[in-house]
Amino acid sequence: MTTLPDIRVGTGFDVHAFDEGSPLRLAGIDWPGEVGLSGHSDGDAVCHAVVDALLAAAGLGDIGGLVGVDEPGTKDAASTGFVRLALALLAENGFRPVNVSVQIVGNRPKFAPRRAEAQRVMTELVGAPVSLSATTSDGLGFTGRGEGIAAIATALIARSA
Amino acid sequence: MTTLPDIRVGTGFDVHAFDEGSPLRLAGIDWPGEVGLSGHSDGDAVCHAVVDALLAAAGLGDIGGLVGVDEPGTKDAASTGFVRLALALLAENGFRPVNVSVQIVGNRPKFAPRRAEAQRVMTELVGAPVSLSATTSDGLGFTGRGEGIAAIATALIARSA
Amino acid sequence: MTTLPDIRVGTGFDVHAFDEGSPLRLAGIDWPGEVGLSGHSDGDAVCHAVVDALLAAAGLGDIGGLVGVDEPGTKDAASTGFVRLALALLAENGFRPVNVSVQIVGNRPKFAPRRAEAQRVMTELVGAPVSLSATTSDGLGFTGRGEGIAAIATALIARSA
Repeated sequence: MTTLPDIRVGTGFDVHAFDEGSPLRLAGIDWPGEVGLSGHSDGDAVCHAVVDALLAAAGLGDIGGLVGVDEPGTKDAASTGFVRLALALLAENGFRPVNVSVQIVGNRPKFAPRRAEAQRVMTELVGAPVSLSATTSDGLGFTGRGEGIAAIATALIARSA
Repeated sequence: MTTLPDIRVGTGFDVHAFDEGSPLRLAGIDWPGEVGLSGHSDGDAVCHAVVDALLAAAGLGDIGGLVGVDEPGTKDAASTGFVRLALALLAENGFRPVNVSVQIVGNRPKFAPRRAEAQRVMTELVGAPVSLSATTSDGLGFTGRGEGIAAIATALIARSA
Repeated sequence: MTTLPDIRVGTGFDVHAFDEGSPLRLAGIDWPGEVGLSGHSDGDAVCHAVVDALLAAAGLGDIGGLVGVDEPGTKDAASTGFVRLALALLAENGFRPVNVSVQIVGNRPKFAPRRAEAQRVMTELVGAPVSLSATTSDGLGFTGRGEGIAAIATALIARSA
């Protein structure tokens, strides 16, 4: 009987509506000239889905428990900070990320031209491979009507030792 | 060359519409005073997504094949029983669950206050770590309009020996 | 400390709208008499989600980067060819698929009668277990209104040696 390494999988999903009045921050980078996303923080749906996937893999709750919306400093906060908080909580519990995959669903921004750049930023942030992909929903649903963005993430984590 | 342990991943997704006339059962627990979910069974979208993720990981079909809707005893059945059926089928095929992660998408019920309790119940039911997380869809889509609940599950399973 | 095998997880999601004027090709098989899906290629949302999940697991981008829509030969192309392209790219980068799980969300076609057949075709195509499952969204959202099909895929891959 082979000893199975202690690895676990986690799922994260997040949606934010477009908000004409705010700048776009998505996948850890700024998108000058693009319509932003609503939210108490910067609305970075990719970071939020990554946080939820990492926490879920470790059974440590979700972003709502990690970051109280009433906490000082979270208004318009960079969501990259929430990813760091989640990683610290994982480390405290003896886990490290193996890899994370995030699919963005939406009409905009055009993701392909900056996909590689965003993937580098997110990979450096997480300290393990993060892959980013993007698709439209063929004109259907709220993403197809251009009302917002959805992000679906899956994370693999392992016991640190 | 390292021998890779025989592990597999599975995806499950389920949606149920709210049904004013029925009690809510979600994630294996009762929610007194909350609006229920429609369905031939108790409509527990979390249990259904878990069943589909476990069966999918093992390539054993989906909940529709496991539980015929015309079978006696399935009307208003507790979906925790479907999870037990899926686990038995996995065991017969030499697989055991490693962990399962479920993200609930919807406006209600408020999940955070009972997240830990539901996670304990589902973990005991599955016999392996089940993590539960919840999010809204920021007012967008059918979940944002309060029409129903979606549950996205990912399961990791392994050969029993 | 156990050496962890180099395994990674990937997520894929795809949506296609129904298109009355075209034949249906879904999960690598033809569905005579069923309404088809729109798309530059054959619109096979299952194959597209599999491609995105495999590429994402390896951090190799998404189907948009693999297959330019302006490339000759892609109009009405069989999407099984895109799966082969993705597998070749994975192999070049030293990865092989462990298993893939795809959940189809939609009202039609009735998937159960041909689930096992489609699963065999996709498993042969990928060269590793592919599981297919199907569900409706209980009448909600664009899938519930019968406007199109969504496919959610999760892939597990490993270093080849």
